[in-house]
Amino acid sequence: MPTISVRGQEMPASPIRKLAPLADAAKARGTHVYHLNIGQPDLPTPQVTLEAIRNIDRKVLEYSPSQGYRSYREKLTGYYKKFDINLTADDIIITTGGSEAVLFAFLSCLNPGDEIIVPEPAYANYMAFAISAGAVIRTITTTIEEGFSLPKVEKFEELINERTKAILICNPNNPTGYLYTRREMNQIRDLVKKYDLYLFSDEVYREFIYTGSPYISACHLEGIENNVVLIDSVSKRYSECGIRIGALITKNEEVRKAVMKFCQARLSPPLIGQIAAEASLDASDEYLRETYDEYVERRKCLIDGLNRIPGVYSPIPMGAFYTVAKLPVDDSEKFCAWCLAEFEYEGETVMMAPASGFYTTPGAGRDEVRIAYVLKKDDLVRALYVLRKALEAYPGRTI
Amino acid sequence: MPTISVRGQEMPASPIRKLAPLADAAKARGTHVYHLNIGQPDLPTPQVTLEAIRNIDRKVLEYSPSQGYRSYREKLTGYYKKFDINLTADDIIITTGGSEAVLFAFLSCLNPGDEIIVPEPAYANYMAFAISAGAVIRTITTTIEEGFSLPKVEKFEELINERTKAILICNPNNPTGYLYTRREMNQIRDLVKKYDLYLFSDEVYREFIYTGSPYISACHLEGIENNVVLIDSVSKRYSECGIRIGALITKNEEVRKAVMKFCQARLSPPLIGQIAAEASLDASDEYLRETYDEYVERRKCLIDGLNRIPGVYSPIPMGAFYTVAKLPVDDSEKFCAWCLAEFEYEGETVMMAPASGFYTTPGAGRDEVRIAYVLKKDDLVRALYVLRKALEAYPGRTI
Repeated sequence: MPTISVRGQEMPASPIRKLAPLADAAKARGTHVYHLNIGQPDLPTPQVTLEAIRNIDRKVLEYSPSQGYRSYREKLTGYYKKFDINLTADDIIITTGGSEAVLFAFLSCLNPGDEIIVPEPAYANYMAFAISAGAVIRTITTTIEEGFSLPKVEKFEELINERTKAILICNPNNPTGYLYTRREMNQIRDLVKKYDLYLFSDEVYREFIYTGSPYISACHLEGIENNVVLIDSVSKRYSECGIRIGALITKNEEVRKAVMKFCQARLSPPLIGQIAAEASLDASDEYLRETYDEYVERRKCLIDGLNRIPGVYSPIPMGAFYTVAKLPVDDSEKFCAWCLAEFEYEGETVMMAPASGFYTTPGAGRDEVRIAYVLKKDDLVRALYVLRKALEAYPGRTI
Repeated sequence: MPTISVRGQEMPASPIRKLAPLADAAKARGTHVYHLNIGQPDLPTPQVTLEAIRNIDRKVLEYSPSQGYRSYREKLTGYYKKFDINLTADDIIITTGGSEAVLFAFLSCLNPGDEIIVPEPAYANYMAFAISAGAVIRTITTTIEEGFSLPKVEKFEELINERTKAILICNPNNPTGYLYTRREMNQIRDLVKKYDLYLFSDEVYREFIYTGSPYISACHLEGIENNVVLIDSVSKRYSECGIRIGALITKNEEVRKAVMKFCQARLSPPLIGQIAAEASLDASDEYLRETYDEYVERRKCLIDGLNRIPGVYSPIPMGAFYTVAKLPVDDSEKFCAWCLAEFEYEGETVMMAPASGFYTTPGAGRDEVRIAYVLKKDDLVRALYVLRKALEAYPGRTI
């Protein structure tokens, strides 16, 4: 039997899925599991999207253009304009989910051994795409104590060397819900300019910002237009993660040309997904407002509830639909596994993502979990109650 | 402006798309272009598939499992059984098109620098995926004179060294339409066994075999079950290239585990595509027979027609819907460009894929083109006539 590649072995198991077998076993025992671990919104996909799919009137489900349908890209420019992001259809490349946009950005802009600076905790799959591309992620730690704000510019400069080619941010942030301030974005802009780096900016949660603070897109930063590669996806915005439609957006023509070669190799992004995504742009203001209001309520419910549990602390996330919370436990990975394997309260338990999977620094996030608020409010309230009971019963409790 | 990666620069332009700007210009001048260059079937997608899409009754278009829906994988085992390929649902991983299956096979089984032996001419995108994974493709030339049959085992052994990790075949073959014989498949099996290599076998055209010769799948070869990775796709089979549903299939559990890490990183294959692909398995025998009969006729029409043009030679392709033909021209790349840029006959011209893009050996395939027979018979007849006129008028004609 031939050996599998080192790259295959190095690929980290997804932190949100590692515990899946334990959850399956709990369910098999009849325990109800509240899924606080995944970013799969339960809210409905827009009606107009579902109708567009039902009304597809084609005889052949053929390849679409490798760059994505022009009609969809044209229409997207109007969407971005609402956020003061001025694009032409040519600046936009439609990808198979935001995932493919990240992978193609890495493959096109980075050589094996090149380094990307990423504030941690960070979306764990960035690591997987970096390994796929042979690139190296260097993390700069942000802490729950400082509300996950960015460290000073010197901390970045400590990491910068001749292999450093890019900074990657997720804004609003998964997993922390943090929203970068204008000061922080300017600091990043200055670094990108000074060291001529790429700025990969994953802004798939821009719709979900809950404070009065302004959303500063990487595309708003002046003087680095050719350095910015925007990663986007319709998955969360319209609750349509399954259609796998994202986008890679850049004003840098050389980058687009390189990305297009990878796009042509994989032939085309999903046809029906594009039809759905294009229709989603017509979702009513009411749909968007209702979705938004729902998350605002859930966020309040979750954060208030968490901070009321003795020993638990969560900062107030400004965006997205996650928070990273500190728990009074010895090891959140053990605790999360224990909740599924050994605990139940009135036939129920909770599943959370241990935060250590979102850090690369050994030991970091050991008493933290990521919690997604993609459950109905009643379920969230109940899940919080079950979590409280779990913490009371957990043998590895620290306070 | 930061530099783009060497890998991005090395990525070959797709040989079937390189001439696209010339085709666009020809169309803009009002010239009708017969597309003999692409593998996009014009035949209808099964009714049952289109209906399944119209009948989707979901409120949320959510992520599907990273491995693909179990119901679809279960049903696929029945499909493969018809070809004497015995699988369980666990052996099957659903991918975003056959393209992703190739990429994930390379990423999971090969380290950067590892070598794959591929008979050429070969599907050009294998090269792109190899570059993405940092692997190296070593080609073994097959020739039109020998009908693209495999060279002797010694030719393979000349290429095998300590970096050789895999053999990749496409069977029936794109671009040649060649079908490997039992003797050839046994030869490959012996090599795979002797040197403990992976055998990546792309069999997306298995439905399209036009001779009495048996289809020998890599999965039929005994004693190398753990070495075989089957690449598949529903694109061509059901004329649904746009839904982006393929599969990576292997009995090797270690490989599946590694592949699943890449699958989890990209979250899930397209949801609606899977619903469509699952429904396609219910396509009537009549649909499959009509599709098959149509290709049989087109093949006869094309090959007879080609061989009747003075100086043109095409072997008889045994499968798929392509042929590689020899033309009496100095350079097929120049000729194909000339057809689009400088020629028209009664307002029409032809677009073909220069075969040099399917070879890595410099100079190989210089007087060859790949022609796809995905046009209606009447159009094929007319395209052949226009091709004949083009060859008569071409200044670089060699005989």
